[in-house]
Amino acid sequence: MYDLLKGKKGIIFGALNQRSIAWQTALRAHEEGARLLLSNTPAALRMGDIQTLADICKAEVIAADATSIEDLLTLVDRAVEHFGGKVDFVLHSIAMSPNVRKAVPYEDIDYAFMQKTLDISALSFHKMMNVLYNKDAMAQGGSIVALTYIAGERAFPLYGDMAEAKAMLESVARSFGVKFARKCGVRVNTVSQSPTLTTAGDGIKGMNEIYRYADKLSPLGNASAEECAGYIVSLFSDLTKKVTMQNLYHDGGFSATGITEEALDIFNKGLEK
Amino acid sequence: MYDLLKGKKGIIFGALNQRSIAWQTALRAHEEGARLLLSNTPAALRMGDIQTLADICKAEVIAADATSIEDLLTLVDRAVEHFGGKVDFVLHSIAMSPNVRKAVPYEDIDYAFMQKTLDISALSFHKMMNVLYNKDAMAQGGSIVALTYIAGERAFPLYGDMAEAKAMLESVARSFGVKFARKCGVRVNTVSQSPTLTTAGDGIKGMNEIYRYADKLSPLGNASAEECAGYIVSLFSDLTKKVTMQNLYHDGGFSATGITEEALDIFNKGLEK
Amino acid sequence: MYDLLKGKKGIIFGALNQRSIAWQTALRAHEEGARLLLSNTPAALRMGDIQTLADICKAEVIAADATSIEDLLTLVDRAVEHFGGKVDFVLHSIAMSPNVRKAVPYEDIDYAFMQKTLDISALSFHKMMNVLYNKDAMAQGGSIVALTYIAGERAFPLYGDMAEAKAMLESVARSFGVKFARKCGVRVNTVSQSPTLTTAGDGIKGMNEIYRYADKLSPLGNASAEECAGYIVSLFSDLTKKVTMQNLYHDGGFSATGITEEALDIFNKGLEK
Amino acid sequence: MYDLLKGKKGIIFGALNQRSIAWQTALRAHEEGARLLLSNTPAALRMGDIQTLADICKAEVIAADATSIEDLLTLVDRAVEHFGGKVDFVLHSIAMSPNVRKAVPYEDIDYAFMQKTLDISALSFHKMMNVLYNKDAMAQGGSIVALTYIAGERAFPLYGDMAEAKAMLESVARSFGVKFARKCGVRVNTVSQSPTLTTAGDGIKGMNEIYRYADKLSPLGNASAEECAGYIVSLFSDLTKKVTMQNLYHDGGFSATGITEEALDIFNKGLEK
Repeated sequence: MYDLLKGKKGIIFGALNQRSIAWQTALRAHEEGARLLLSNTPAALRMGDIQTLADICKAEVIAADATSIEDLLTLVDRAVEHFGGKVDFVLHSIAMSPNVRKAVPYEDIDYAFMQKTLDISALSFHKMMNVLYNKDAMAQGGSIVALTYIAGERAFPLYGDMAEAKAMLESVARSFGVKFARKCGVRVNTVSQSPTLTTAGDGIKGMNEIYRYADKLSPLGNASAEECAGYIVSLFSDLTKKVTMQNLYHDGGFSATGITEEALDIFNKGLEK
Repeated sequence: MYDLLKGKKGIIFGALNQRSIAWQTALRAHEEGARLLLSNTPAALRMGDIQTLADICKAEVIAADATSIEDLLTLVDRAVEHFGGKVDFVLHSIAMSPNVRKAVPYEDIDYAFMQKTLDISALSFHKMMNVLYNKDAMAQGGSIVALTYIAGERAFPLYGDMAEAKAMLESVARSFGVKFARKCGVRVNTVSQSPTLTTAGDGIKGMNEIYRYADKLSPLGNASAEECAGYIVSLFSDLTKKVTMQNLYHDGGFSATGITEEALDIFNKGLEK
Repeated sequence: MYDLLKGKKGIIFGALNQRSIAWQTALRAHEEGARLLLSNTPAALRMGDIQTLADICKAEVIAADATSIEDLLTLVDRAVEHFGGKVDFVLHSIAMSPNVRKAVPYEDIDYAFMQKTLDISALSFHKMMNVLYNKDAMAQGGSIVALTYIAGERAFPLYGDMAEAKAMLESVARSFGVKFARKCGVRVNTVSQSPTLTTAGDGIKGMNEIYRYADKLSPLGNASAEECAGYIVSLFSDLTKKVTMQNLYHDGGFSATGITEEALDIFNKGLEK
Repeated sequence: MYDLLKGKKGIIFGALNQRSIAWQTALRAHEEGARLLLSNTPAALRMGDIQTLADICKAEVIAADATSIEDLLTLVDRAVEHFGGKVDFVLHSIAMSPNVRKAVPYEDIDYAFMQKTLDISALSFHKMMNVLYNKDAMAQGGSIVALTYIAGERAFPLYGDMAEAKAMLESVARSFGVKFARKCGVRVNTVSQSPTLTTAGDGIKGMNEIYRYADKLSPLGNASAEECAGYIVSLFSDLTKKVTMQNLYHDGGFSATGITEEALDIFNKGLEK
């Protein structure tokens, strides 16, 4: 540990249990010296085990539905009050698709569900930044990160309408990135992480298959939640103050790989069967 | 004219008046030998001058709100009946943002408006393909094109929440592209066009400035609506049967240009003032 | 056939035999009404069967080493004389890596060989455009296309130093694209084609495996040489006059696909073995 | 300072004087606890002021021409001996184009010069990794970074044949990235930095104009050499162990920005003149 975030204050959205990337990020940010505020929906707070995390991190927990502007207004007010100052970093790790969860085929999508997918997984990021921006709650030179997946750029059939949510989330990062840069030098980036076996991932049919496939197609193998936490901390730190509006792949090289020799061998064996 | 679309039947959504890309595409597709069906919302049909176009193209006009599955079901049934067979090509040229129209700043966006932006400008593309797919209405080897703009990949402040709609639209093209390819060899692509001085463009504050800027940053200059029509026709034709799930820039080179010497000179003059 | 290239005159580099993309492009361009001049190295002309093609296309054949400025100067002079005017389109389909051919591992590359790879496969494109540009031999609004492969953007281990040659070729297209656009409205693009079982491809170890893999990862399947010829003809035609400096995937959707369900099944079967 | 590189040993290529990004990276890596070896060509060592840097960093200086495999073999042997173990990180900050330096127009390029541009600016990166790889000199989980510029992806007329060198350099990073990942978990990335007013940059005609333009087009403004050093240190650290084969923009958001309102205003003023 390096005290990389010493003196910094941040909000982490979306820690459910220790498999969560947000959970690992909170742990790591705490170890790096940050003060934290944890948030999730009331339902997620009941379902998960956040108090354990809060105890370790000496963090406050505040329930908030990130699709609700009111909840976010209250949350940001309480955060600024709690920290006695502005917020240095924010993690958005929130995604859910009722269509994917119920395994609705992409071509038969329920559009009311899809509006939910978009609201929870992408608009929530806009709303969060809207409130932080208009309340002038981000500290000069701060950092905002949201988690995404390469399905925003390439088709992954099992990922359903979450692909559209991720494409939109990444666009929101760019659009708000300009605003925040001009206002107070704040960076906004998305981290495009390897498939990760989180509780959210459990809801995706075929997730294990995708995981193994990506692992073989990634020269360094899939990145873990712990490794992702380390990377996110580097993006919260002062080492990356001029990196903004980027979609950053933390994926063991998957995104830049056409094929590996190992994966090609496996594929050929499968073809021969 | 080459009879490139001889014997083909297609639906064109979004022709308002002769400045529309959809209008020019209909004209050109007609000249290339296609049979056409034109569609737009009832309001747009009243506002514009579609009957003139229909007369030239010997096309039928059917009112449909592309955000309404019912309207689309009716439309596709009538199209198949009218054509006496399946549809070979479809153009989606539909986009509207109440936020942009009312000049709501991006950071203060009205979220009900944004849901409308997304529904009209991106979900409508999904709904259209949903109906075509589930009714098995696309002919083997057909082609579907939607119009987009580079704001889906790079920040253009004046473009507002339309950026997110375009990012989503392009993702829908990829996701449905896989489905349609597997089902009946149909291609799905987006054409990312230069800023174009259409009636839709009139609604964007600063559109003329963006137009001139893009023109100077594009080595070949901005592409016109007529030129775009020609390009779309090439994508409807049998010459492009293996191009799918792509976002294709029809922009005089803008997307691949960092700066031109001419634009740099203009910029420097502006700085000196 | 549509007379798409009626009245146009073009030079096709790199037709060896009927498996060549350049061969198929020459055939198709001829069928579309173009007058042609075919060129290849003296060795390739002896090895292949170009006179057969020339007879069908009523084309002249001129030997030229595309790495030699002198040869290109002579060729372009003779072309302009032969055509009685400027050149409307050019195809560059030239690539060879001694390292790949001799299966030298990438980490032990022979650098003299690599200079050859680059000279033959990428610099030749620069030299060709240099001569056409400085001799003012391209007609207003003409079109120049070079063939490339996605290994220029993503790692394909078996492709060796040809990856670097393709990355460079695509950059040359952009750089010269600006020059040609400004001078005479000429477009310069690269077509990134599916793996194709040409004689050149025979030299790549594992080519068949890559071919089968790409075929399953491409929703429309791999594109054939004939289909590529059709696409190139569309880029030579007047339908694409504002498309420039682009790398255009003609690959059945491979580039925009993370995984297909079918490929994932095959991969899983392979893993279980 | 965080002791981010405590216990790590690295080689820095290309520090000329304190304006150099390599110079700043050496300083910062030293402050972060790394042991260093500095290298540059004999001519650059004479011209610059490297001993000052070496004194501050307690680093050894070894002359080596990075285009010479022999020099690199000697250098790597001496590094491993000096460090008493393998190398944890390497920075490649080497680029030179005789064509650009002598302001040869891109369309009249001297091809012998261009081979030099490629050898110095891109092949040197391959040779460096070749030697490190074959001598098994990189420590498990190490990190290799090369500096690049967005001219590798988009046309910047004044950048000349350096565009091709950068495109190639980025491809080398991907190709060797697969090899190093599989062998010993080493990452290979390129950092695409804002235009920087280094001594190398002085050689580019119009560099000041490009610098000012990029500054206005970058929402956070151009990134400085010092800031770049911090970012590179994050890539050398254990926080980024699963990031590989990426081209990472450290550019204040330039790469993801179509236009800013400020730049559009300046541009319009320039147009009116």
